[in-house]
Amino acid sequence: MTSYNAPVRDTQFLFEDVFDVYESYTGLPGMSDFNADLVNAILEEAGKFASQEVHPLNYSGDKEGCRWDDGKVTLPKGYREVVEKYVEGGWTQISEGTEFGGQGLPRLLSGALLEFWMGASPAFGIYSSRDGSIAAIERNATQALKEKYLPNLVNGSWVGTMAMTEPHCGSDLGLLRTKAEPQSDGSYKITGTKIFITGGETDLGGNTIHLALARIPGSPEGIKGISLFVVPKYLVNDDGSLGDENNIYCSSIEHKMGLNASATCTMNFEASRGWLIGDVDKGMRAMFAMVNHSRFLVGVQTTGLSEVAYQNAAAYARDRVQMRSLTGPKNPDANADPIIVHPDVRRMLLSQRAYAEGSRALNTYIGVLFDEQERNEDAAKRAQAGQLLGLLTPICKGFGSEMGTENTNLALQCFGGHGFIAETGVEQFVRDMRITQLYEGTTGIQGLDLLARKVLGSQGETLKLFTDEIGAFCVEHADVEALHMFIAPLSELKEQWQQLTTKVGVAAMEKTADELGSASVDYLMFSGYVTLAYMWAKMAAAALGKDEAFYRAKLQTAQFYYQRILPRTQVHAQVMLSGSGYLMNMHADDF
Amino acid sequence: MTSYNAPVRDTQFLFEDVFDVYESYTGLPGMSDFNADLVNAILEEAGKFASQEVHPLNYSGDKEGCRWDDGKVTLPKGYREVVEKYVEGGWTQISEGTEFGGQGLPRLLSGALLEFWMGASPAFGIYSSRDGSIAAIERNATQALKEKYLPNLVNGSWVGTMAMTEPHCGSDLGLLRTKAEPQSDGSYKITGTKIFITGGETDLGGNTIHLALARIPGSPEGIKGISLFVVPKYLVNDDGSLGDENNIYCSSIEHKMGLNASATCTMNFEASRGWLIGDVDKGMRAMFAMVNHSRFLVGVQTTGLSEVAYQNAAAYARDRVQMRSLTGPKNPDANADPIIVHPDVRRMLLSQRAYAEGSRALNTYIGVLFDEQERNEDAAKRAQAGQLLGLLTPICKGFGSEMGTENTNLALQCFGGHGFIAETGVEQFVRDMRITQLYEGTTGIQGLDLLARKVLGSQGETLKLFTDEIGAFCVEHADVEALHMFIAPLSELKEQWQQLTTKVGVAAMEKTADELGSASVDYLMFSGYVTLAYMWAKMAAAALGKDEAFYRAKLQTAQFYYQRILPRTQVHAQVMLSGSGYLMNMHADDF
Repeated sequence: MTSYNAPVRDTQFLFEDVFDVYESYTGLPGMSDFNADLVNAILEEAGKFASQEVHPLNYSGDKEGCRWDDGKVTLPKGYREVVEKYVEGGWTQISEGTEFGGQGLPRLLSGALLEFWMGASPAFGIYSSRDGSIAAIERNATQALKEKYLPNLVNGSWVGTMAMTEPHCGSDLGLLRTKAEPQSDGSYKITGTKIFITGGETDLGGNTIHLALARIPGSPEGIKGISLFVVPKYLVNDDGSLGDENNIYCSSIEHKMGLNASATCTMNFEASRGWLIGDVDKGMRAMFAMVNHSRFLVGVQTTGLSEVAYQNAAAYARDRVQMRSLTGPKNPDANADPIIVHPDVRRMLLSQRAYAEGSRALNTYIGVLFDEQERNEDAAKRAQAGQLLGLLTPICKGFGSEMGTENTNLALQCFGGHGFIAETGVEQFVRDMRITQLYEGTTGIQGLDLLARKVLGSQGETLKLFTDEIGAFCVEHADVEALHMFIAPLSELKEQWQQLTTKVGVAAMEKTADELGSASVDYLMFSGYVTLAYMWAKMAAAALGKDEAFYRAKLQTAQFYYQRILPRTQVHAQVMLSGSGYLMNMHADDF
Repeated sequence: MTSYNAPVRDTQFLFEDVFDVYESYTGLPGMSDFNADLVNAILEEAGKFASQEVHPLNYSGDKEGCRWDDGKVTLPKGYREVVEKYVEGGWTQISEGTEFGGQGLPRLLSGALLEFWMGASPAFGIYSSRDGSIAAIERNATQALKEKYLPNLVNGSWVGTMAMTEPHCGSDLGLLRTKAEPQSDGSYKITGTKIFITGGETDLGGNTIHLALARIPGSPEGIKGISLFVVPKYLVNDDGSLGDENNIYCSSIEHKMGLNASATCTMNFEASRGWLIGDVDKGMRAMFAMVNHSRFLVGVQTTGLSEVAYQNAAAYARDRVQMRSLTGPKNPDANADPIIVHPDVRRMLLSQRAYAEGSRALNTYIGVLFDEQERNEDAAKRAQAGQLLGLLTPICKGFGSEMGTENTNLALQCFGGHGFIAETGVEQFVRDMRITQLYEGTTGIQGLDLLARKVLGSQGETLKLFTDEIGAFCVEHADVEALHMFIAPLSELKEQWQQLTTKVGVAAMEKTADELGSASVDYLMFSGYVTLAYMWAKMAAAALGKDEAFYRAKLQTAQFYYQRILPRTQVHAQVMLSGSGYLMNMHADDF
C-alpha cells in the first residue's frame, strides 16, 4: 500500500527562501493578508487533508473505476464524499476573486495546493479544480452570465468542464462540427457530440457547467468560425435556482489505461441551450484563458505524481534488503544490505527527486507569474508576466509530462518485479501519469506551441525576457565559488538556447517549414532542461551555507541534476539541427 | 482493434542478405536440410498462425486475465486451444535436438519464430517456449532424467517453469530459503514458497516441470549453497505415465500491470519430490544454461511488441487526418492531412522502426551465436560464440527493454488521446512491455552483468572480440562512399567503447567499486546504441544499391538512426564518467 506526505516543508522553502514571495507580494494589490503564518497554516491543513482523506481513496478508486448506467455516472466509492468535504472546507475559493465569493489569495497558493491534491490522487486533483472554467467566464462573459454562474463555481457547489474534442478532431479543433443555432432570445441551440470530456457527467451533484466550442451556421470553416458557449446541465432560473434538464446526455465513459477514478465522458448535446461567451467566431481566443490554466494543471499533475512515486520508491529502497554493497557490507548484522546502497538505485531516486523538486520550483515560479499577470498595477509588468507564462506553460506541461513519465517509471523500477504487481501501487502512478503526455495537447503540440508560436512568433522577444533574467541571476551569483558548478554551465546554456533558436528559425526560413516540426520536440526538451537548471541553481543559491540535512540534500540534488541530467541538452541541441530530410524522405506508403 | 503481420520479409532479408546464413551454416553439422525454401515455408506458415490464430486473442486475453480457483488456474478464453494447436503443429520441436524428438533446425529459426509469437501475443510467446527448461536439463541432468523429461517437453505436451524467486529474494538468490532434504532413494524433498513463477500453474494439461532452486541442509549460505532440482507437478512413472500429484500448490496468482494472459503464480512446494540436476551446490551454474535463453526471450519480446506497436501506429498515422502540413496541404481534397505528414509523427514512427528492425537484426545475430556455440566442431569457435553470447545477452535484454518501453510509448503517443483508451489496444503494448525491464534481472542487474562480469571480468577480452569484428567490418566497407555516414561514426564509437571501458575500470580500481554501479546502466545503454549502430550499418550495406522501396526504407531508417538516435551515446559517455560521489554523498536517511 502506498502512502503520501504532502511536501509542505518544500513548498515553504520555495515560497520563502527561493522566491521570497512574502516580500515581493507586498507590492501587489489585495495582498495585505498574505503572510507566512496564514499560508503555513493552510499548507499544513491541506497537507493533512491530502494525505489522510484523499490519498487512501487513490488505489481503490483506480481498481473500482467509474460506473456508467443509462447516462448517469457514479464515481468510485468515497470520491463524492471527499469532494463534498473539500467544497465544504472552502478549498475551491482560496484563489478566486472576492467579487464572486473567493478568498482572493494568490494563484501561487492554489497552485501549491493543487500539487497536494494531484499527489494524493490525480483524479481528485482534477475534480478539485474549477480554475479554467472560472477564468474563461470571468474574462469573456457578460456581467449577467458571470453573476449567474461564477458564485456557485467559486463556492464549489457546481463543477465545470471543457467540451472541445470531437471524435474526428482533437488537436485540430478547426474540424469541429458541433452546431450552435441562434435563437430569438439571444441564446443558442447546441447540437453535437463531444468526446473525452473530463467529468462531463458525475454524481457530484449541483450543476455541471460545460464550456463548449461550436460553430454558428454561416461562420467560416476552420478555427476562425468557432465560438465558445456556456451550456449548463440544468438550466438556471433568474433567481439562481435550478430549472429543467438541458438535453445533455452522457452516452458512455471511456475504459482507459489509467486515471480510472476520473470520468472521461462522451457527451451528446441535443439542441441544448447555450449562451455565447466572448465574441462570435472568437471562441479559440476566449478559450485560451482556460488553456494556460489547464496545461498548468497537467504540469502540476506531473509534479504531484512524481513526488508520491518518489516517496514510495525511496521508502522501499531504504527498507528492502537485497545483495551487498559493491564496497562491502553496510548492514553487517543482516544477510544483505538495503538496496539504497546501490549507486544505480540512487541514480533512479535522485532523478525522480530532481524532477519532482525542480518542477515544483517551476510551478511556484509560474504561480507567481499568474498573480503578476492578474494583479500587477503596471500594465507592462502584467504583459511581461503574460509573455513568460506563455513561454513556460508548454515547458511545464510538455517537458514536464515527458519527465514525469520517465520518473514514475524509474520509481516503479526501484521496486524490481514487485513494481509490476498492482497491489504495490506504484504501477498506477505510471498509468495515471501517462495521460499527461496526451491531454490538453500532446508533447508534439507543446513543442510547436513553444517554438513556433511563443518563441519565433514573438521574434525571440519572449525568450529573451527569460534568458535575460537567467543572465542577471548568473551575473548576480558569478562570484560565489560554491555556486560555480551551476552558474558556469547555466550561463553557457542560456546563450546556446538563443543560438539554437536563431539556427532553427533560419533553417525554417531558408529551407522548409518542416524544419520547425522536425526540431520542435527536441527544442522543447532542451528548453525544459535549461529551465529546470535555472530552478535548481536558484534552489542551490537559497540552500547554500545552511547547515541542515534539508538544505544539504538540496545542494546534492542540484549537483546530481547538473552532472547527470543536464548533459542531455547536448543531444537535443545536435539532433534538432540534423535537418528534416531524415524524417521526411521516406514515402508515407513505405512506413 | 489492433492487427499484426509477422515480419516475414524482414526476417528473410536478415537471413539471406545481412547474415547470409544459408551459406555460412553449411559448415555446421546437421545442417544439410537447412535451406531457404524450407525456412521460407516455415516463416510463412508461422506468420499466418501468429497473425490469424494468436493475435486475435491478445486483447481479449488482457481484459479477461487468468483465473485462480482453489489452486487451479484457467487461462483466458482461447489460450489453451491455441497452445494445443501450436503443439500439434510441431512448433515446439523446431530447434530441439533430434535425440529427444526435435527437428534439429537452428536456434536462429526458432528465435525468429519466437518474435512472431511475442508480437502476436507476448503471453502466448511465453507459453510457447520450453527452450530454457530443455537446455538446463539437457546440459546438466543424468541420461535417465533426460529420457524421462525431455521427449514430452520437446513435443510440447509438457511445459516447464523456472522456480527461483522467493518473497524476500529476487535479484539476490543467495538469500533463498527453499529446502531440499535428501532421501534414501536419491531424490530430495523440496519445501518452500516461490513467487513470480510464470506459468507455474495453468490449464495447459500434461505435466508441469519445475526447475527449482533450493538449499540442501548443511550447504553453505549464499549462492554457493544452492542446487537445482527438477520437480514435476505429477510424478512420472518409469514407463513414462503420470503418477501421483507431487504436493505442489498454487496459492495465488498476481494482479499485474500487464501481461495479464500470462499466469504469474505463487507456488508452494510441500515436501515435493525433486531430483538434483547438475552438481550439489552448483545450482547457479546449472541454471545459467537457462538464463541466456530466458534473457534472450525477453529481448525478443521487446522486438515483437515494438513491431506490433509500430505497425498499428504507422497504420493510424496514415489514416488519421488532423491539421495541415506546415508546408501546405498534402491532401487538398479533404479538410486535413493524414498526421504522417508531420515531422514529429515521423520521428516517433522512425524511432520505433529503428528499434524494432535493429533489434531483430541483433536477435538474428544472437541466434547465429547460439547455433555456433552448440554446433561448431571447433571448440575455440564454440567458446568464442559463447563469449559473444554472454556479452550480447545483457544488451539484448537490458538495453532492449529500455528501448522497448520507450518505443511502445512512442507508438501510443502517435494515437494522441485515443492511445490512452483501452479499446485502441496500444496501451496494452506499453503495459505488456513494461515487465521486460524487470523480469529475468532488472536493467540495473543487466548493466552490472555486462560491465563487471562480462567485460571487466574477461579483462576486456570479450569486448575486444566484438569490437574487432566491428573494426573488420568498418575496414571492409571503408571505401564505399555511400556507407561513409555509417562507417565513420561506427569506427569512432567502437574505439570510444574500448576507451570508456578502460576509464571506468581504472576508476573502479583507483577509487571505489561504486564507480561500477554508478556507470553500469549508462555503460549498458552506450553499448546497446553502438551494437544497434553496427546492426544498422550491416543492414545498410546489405540494402545498398537495391532499387526497391523495401531496401530504400532500410537505408533511410539507418540514416535516421545514425542522425537522431546515435548521438545519445555521448551523454552516456559523459555521465558514466561523472563519478559515484554525486550518487553516494547523500545520506540514506535524507532521501
